This record gives sequence, structure tokens and C-alpha cells, in this order.
Amino acid sequence: MFKARIKADSLKEFIGTVGSLVDEAKINVSEDGLQVKAVDPSHVAMIEANLMKTAFDSFEVSDIQMGLDIDKFKSVLTMAGKDEMVILEKDDELNRLVVNIGNLTRAMPLLDTSGMPDPKVPSLDLPAKVSVASGEIGQGIKASKAVSDHIALSTSKDNFRLVCEGDNQNRVDLSLGIDQLEKLSSSEDCTSLFSLEYFSLMVNSLPADRILHIMLGSDLPVKIDADLAVDDVTGAQGNVKFLLAPRIDRD
Amino acid sequence: MFKARIKADSLKEFIGTVGSLVDEAKINVSEDGLQVKAVDPSHVAMIEANLMKTAFDSFEVSDIQMGLDIDKFKSVLTMAGKDEMVILEKDDELNRLVVNIGNLTRAMPLLDTSGMPDPKVPSLDLPAKVSVASGEIGQGIKASKAVSDHIALSTSKDNFRLVCEGDNQNRVDLSLGIDQLEKLSSSEDCTSLFSLEYFSLMVNSLPADRILHIMLGSDLPVKIDADLAVDDVTGAQGNVKFLLAPRIDRD
Amino acid sequence: MFKARIKADSLKEFIGTVGSLVDEAKINVSEDGLQVKAVDPSHVAMIEANLMKTAFDSFEVSDIQMGLDIDKFKSVLTMAGKDEMVILEKDDELNRLVVNIGNLTRAMPLLDTSGMPDPKVPSLDLPAKVSVASGEIGQGIKASKAVSDHIALSTSKDNFRLVCEGDNQNRVDLSLGIDQLEKLSSSEDCTSLFSLEYFSLMVNSLPADRILHIMLGSDLPVKIDADLAVDDVTGAQGNVKFLLAPRIDRD
Repeated sequence: MFKARIKADSLKEFIGTVGSLVDEAKINVSEDGLQVKAVDPSHVAMIEANLMKTAFDSFEVSDIQMGLDIDKFKSVLTMAGKDEMVILEKDDELNRLVVNIGNLTRAMPLLDTSGMPDPKVPSLDLPAKVSVASGEIGQGIKASKAVSDHIALSTSKDNFRLVCEGDNQNRVDLSLGIDQLEKLSSSEDCTSLFSLEYFSLMVNSLPADRILHIMLGSDLPVKIDADLAVDDVTGAQGNVKFLLAPRIDRD
Repeated sequence: MFKARIKADSLKEFIGTVGSLVDEAKINVSEDGLQVKAVDPSHVAMIEANLMKTAFDSFEVSDIQMGLDIDKFKSVLTMAGKDEMVILEKDDELNRLVVNIGNLTRAMPLLDTSGMPDPKVPSLDLPAKVSVASGEIGQGIKASKAVSDHIALSTSKDNFRLVCEGDNQNRVDLSLGIDQLEKLSSSEDCTSLFSLEYFSLMVNSLPADRILHIMLGSDLPVKIDADLAVDDVTGAQGNVKFLLAPRIDRD
Repeated sequence: MFKARIKADSLKEFIGTVGSLVDEAKINVSEDGLQVKAVDPSHVAMIEANLMKTAFDSFEVSDIQMGLDIDKFKSVLTMAGKDEMVILEKDDELNRLVVNIGNLTRAMPLLDTSGMPDPKVPSLDLPAKVSVASGEIGQGIKASKAVSDHIALSTSKDNFRLVCEGDNQNRVDLSLGIDQLEKLSSSEDCTSLFSLEYFSLMVNSLPADRILHIMLGSDLPVKIDADLAVDDVTGAQGNVKFLLAPRIDRD
């Protein structure tokens, strides 16, 4: 059983982060809220996203799992204004999700979840941590796309840098000091190289004012944590953790 | 002879409804104003649109007919701001329409109207009538496009519904009660199935706040009447009547 | 040596006019500022654009020449807000231009300028002169594109006209009298025919409120002069001169 009511904005954010990595996903529904754990098709990146029960206006569930076509679900949610309420209900008989927005009801089939395991998020000890608003690195990522398809993230004691080296002397270098960062703790200098496409998808799935907590090492995966469904009064009602494998083939 | 002056907005609306069904049309010009009667190329839908003499600032005519490339005419009218005045004049010598917008004059050739008969609008006795703002059903139509290419319109005593059933349990259901409708009179329950594309073109050719008067039966054509060239002071200076044949191949 | 700091807006305007005619250009850097002289690839049009030293906040140079990929440079400049400062620096060692915008640094390779001569701008004696805001002729140019690929510019004692004649009675005629013009001096009637594409690119490379000084003859090239990098306090800090060859094949 699953019936829940939530502000469109919060649900869109949750589904948007999931959609940055996968087209289909298994949503785990429990007393705590909604959770997705997924690995992207090429096994380079991983996401764990949680939308807590408190993000919902009403929330009646038993433990279930629902396979969802994320793209289709996102397009259904575009029908709802930012502050409009969305009612979700699982139709057990026909195995579909019924989405209610105002006078509009949209039913969509659920997918078979047997081929969708819950990936195990590896525990990592990453020496550096940077907290920065998503919007601060947006221009750097955009400029980098014209130059190469990978990007190096680095930290030093007083600096967080995105460097993208292309062919033929093309180069993008975004350097953020303490003043542009919310927080920086980097006991040692760290540098890792990543797929620019994946890094960009992750960062751009979040609003420009959202703080990203980026954990970095040298030739190690990067972890990006952020709040989801942020309410001015009650705070964050969800969170997302991205993990992205490094590209080691640097020269 | 034809020379007339009109606010761009009113003319755009008139031409826009015609353009939703046909690329070329014969405009009948008379003392009463402009009139178009046309059937779409696949003979599924029909339009009769009138723009009354009172919609014009000045209007000097003898009875004539002009064949117009509607797409080209629409694109010429985009040159005019909403409240800008458009002067139309038939150049008899060169058989073209001269459109004047501010300092800009655009002449476009008239088409041969010999292959453009005036279709006869059939008289229909349709038992149900719904009046609803175009914008109220816009989201339902948009959502339906992802699901199927036909849509069922139904009325009951207290309800107007758009239902679109797709493959694989996909379904859109927009249900409007008395509160969302301007008017509803349905002595018996009616349902007819229509081409979603045509229905969408008709509805979307009108502004979101325009009231549609929808007349419906069971497995019968739908008729949609609406005002055109609405002026806050003097009321509507034109009208459009759409007719759309049902799809009977329901299962 | 070249290091300079300038408001993004001024630099964008300068580069934008150059980019209307050529994809690659040689920038001449001297004590006076930046200058580009270039002929478009089909040798129909020519540009001379100057951005004076006074347009810059700081300007340290020796005489150099830099070959630039204009499209790439334009796309880099889109990273800067209108009023943001851009720092340009030539990296002599790696032969590249380093562009600094806020915390973002973008290096791009310089092109070999050996195949980029400085064209000689011919001196012309053109009898008519019209001064008109770029925006006044924008709609006329846009309407003309649907009609033909060439446009006639004409002047008479009290009139400036753009006339575009298409096949099949299609015609656009924009007629501007003294009231719509900043200035008009035409001792004799002049008419020349031009490529609409080139004329459009030139005019549209400038903002709608910029005054174009159009010099015209009969079957002679047209010259268009305009200010660049206009500052409300200090006036224009640059200028552009376009030259466009006539099309003589009028009938």
C-alpha cells in the first residue's frame, strides 16, 4: 500500500537527481520515506537519494518497491506548478502508479524491479572536503565542455580548483578561494580526474543555491552530498549522495 | 475592392484559428465582414470563422473572395505588435494582398480559389453542452499526448471528462466538476472518441482564457464554438465554430 | 606583450561585429587599442573595427598581432555578465590568449596570422547619407527574408527605403521619412541592390538603439559606420565601418 501527498517542488528535486544518472529506478518505500539507490548503466557513478516522510503532507505506506520510468515520471511532474500538491497512489490491482495533480489523473505502469538490485555504497575515506554552492562552479563546468570531456578537481589548503585541459593549448581553470567557499578542509593536496559529463549531470541536477559537500582524494572517487526538499522553516526533508569513479588514465 | 484597418491582435486570432486546420483558405469578404469556411485536407474537421465588420476600424469592401496562404499570412502578422494597426488592401491589378504595418508594406500573391469550395456545415442535434475556459483543459491535452493519439470526451450530469487510454496501463483522466466549468447541461451521459491531434490544434488556437462551448453526443461529432476578437468594451467581434468527426473504432 | 582589462559588454560588441563577417580574424594590438580589418570569405563584404585604448580599464601592450577563432572567443565571452570585467593576457610562451572572468580562467590557442592580410579599405565617394537606428529597419529586414535573398536600398530627398522584390508578386517595402530618421542627405536619388544576408548580419550585429550611418550611391557599395562600446558618460570608445559590394545583376 502506498498513498502520499507532497509539494511538486520537493518531488521534482528528488526525481531530478535520480534522473541525472538513470532512466529507470527502483523506489524503496518504507515508514521512513522514499529511497533510491542506483548505479548508472556504465557503472561509473552511483546515487543514493532519500526523501523523508516529513517531506510529505500525508504518507500512508507499507514497505514496497516500485520500478519507475524516471523520464516519464519527470514529464508527468512538469504538469504541476512548483507549489502545487501531487498525490501518488499505487494501484495494486493494475500494478501502476496513479499520479494526481489538481483535476488531472495520470496512471503509468510500474516496471519489473527484479533486475534492479540495491547497490552497496562503498565506504570511502576521503581526506579533503569542500562545501560550495552549486552555482559557483556552473560557469566553470559550462566553459569546460568546449575544451575536453574530463575535468580535474583539486584542493589545497586554501583553494578548490576545477581544471580542464584540452588539445592545442585550450584550458579552463576555475579557482575558488576561501571567500567563495562555504567550507574547505584539505590537510593534504588532492587531485582526481573525472568524466565531465557525469560531474556536470550531478551538479546541474541541483538548484544553483544548493550547497554541495564535495569529498575528494587523489585518484579516488569523489563523493557529493547535498540536501533535498529544503524548506525554509523545517530545513531539509531529504538528501542525495553521489559517488563518481575517477578516471585514472591521466597523462 | 477591399481596404480595411484592424488591430493586429484581432486579425491574428481569426487567422490563427483558420491556420489550425488548413494551410490555404478562401476568405469571403462581404458587407458583414470576413468569413472562412474550410475542411481540413483529410476531411476529419471543419471550421467556420467570422470576423465582423465591427472588428475593423475602417472597412471598405465590395463582395470578393481571396485565396490566402495562411502560414505566410500568419508570419507576416508576427511583424505587428499586439495593439498595432494592420491595413489590408487588395491590389486588383496584380492580384495580391498588400499588408501595411507601420512603415512596412508587404505584398503577397493571392491564390486561385477555384478549387476551394465553401463546405456546408451539417446541422447536428447534440444532447450535451459544456462551457469551459480553454486553459482548463490544456494540461490534460498535453499530458494525453504522451499516452495515445486519441481522446475520449464525456459528459455526465455533474461532470466533464477527458480520458486518454494508452498501451500498457498508461492513462490520463481529467475530470472537471461544476466548479471548474462555466456551464454544463447533459441530460444523458455522452461519450465520443476523437483524434487528439485535431482536438489539440483547435483548442490551442485560442487563448487560455477564452470560453469554449463544447457540444457533444455519443459517437457523434463534437462542435466547439468560441468568440473571436473579444473587446472588453464592445464584446466579441467575431466567432469560430469547429466541427470534428468522431473516431468510431473504439474497443 | 598584451595585458588588458575591459568591461565584457564593450568587448562583446567589438567581437560581435567582427564575427558577423568572419570566423577567424587577426587582431592588431597597438598603443591606440585593438583593430581588426577583414574581408569575408566570399569577398563581398569588408569590416574595419576599432576598440580604443580608452575603452579599457587598464591596457599594457607592445605592438602585436593575434590570430583569433572568433566563434570560440564569442562563446568564452558569454561566460561574462554584461558589466563583468574581462582580463585578456597573451601567453607568449604557449602562444595562447588567456581570458580571465571572475574566478574563471580560459586559455585558447592563437591562430597563425600569416594568411591574414590587412585588406585596404577603398576610398569611396558616396552621394547619399542616412542616419537611422538599427532597430528601425530590423522588421523590414526580417520580413524581407521570406521574400528574396537581395534587398534594394534607396534614398530620395525625403525618404529612405528598403525594397525587397520576390517571385510571384511578393514584395516588402519599408519606407522611412524624415521623422523616422536621425538624418538624411541625398542630393540625388540613389538605389543599389545588396545581398540581404550580408546586410542583415551587419545590421543585426549592433544593438537596436545604435545609430547606423549608411552611405549610399547608385550601383555602388554601401558603407555603414557605427559607434562601438558606447559609454553614457565618455561617449563611444570604438567604431566599426562595414563595406558591402552591390549586386549589379538587377533586372
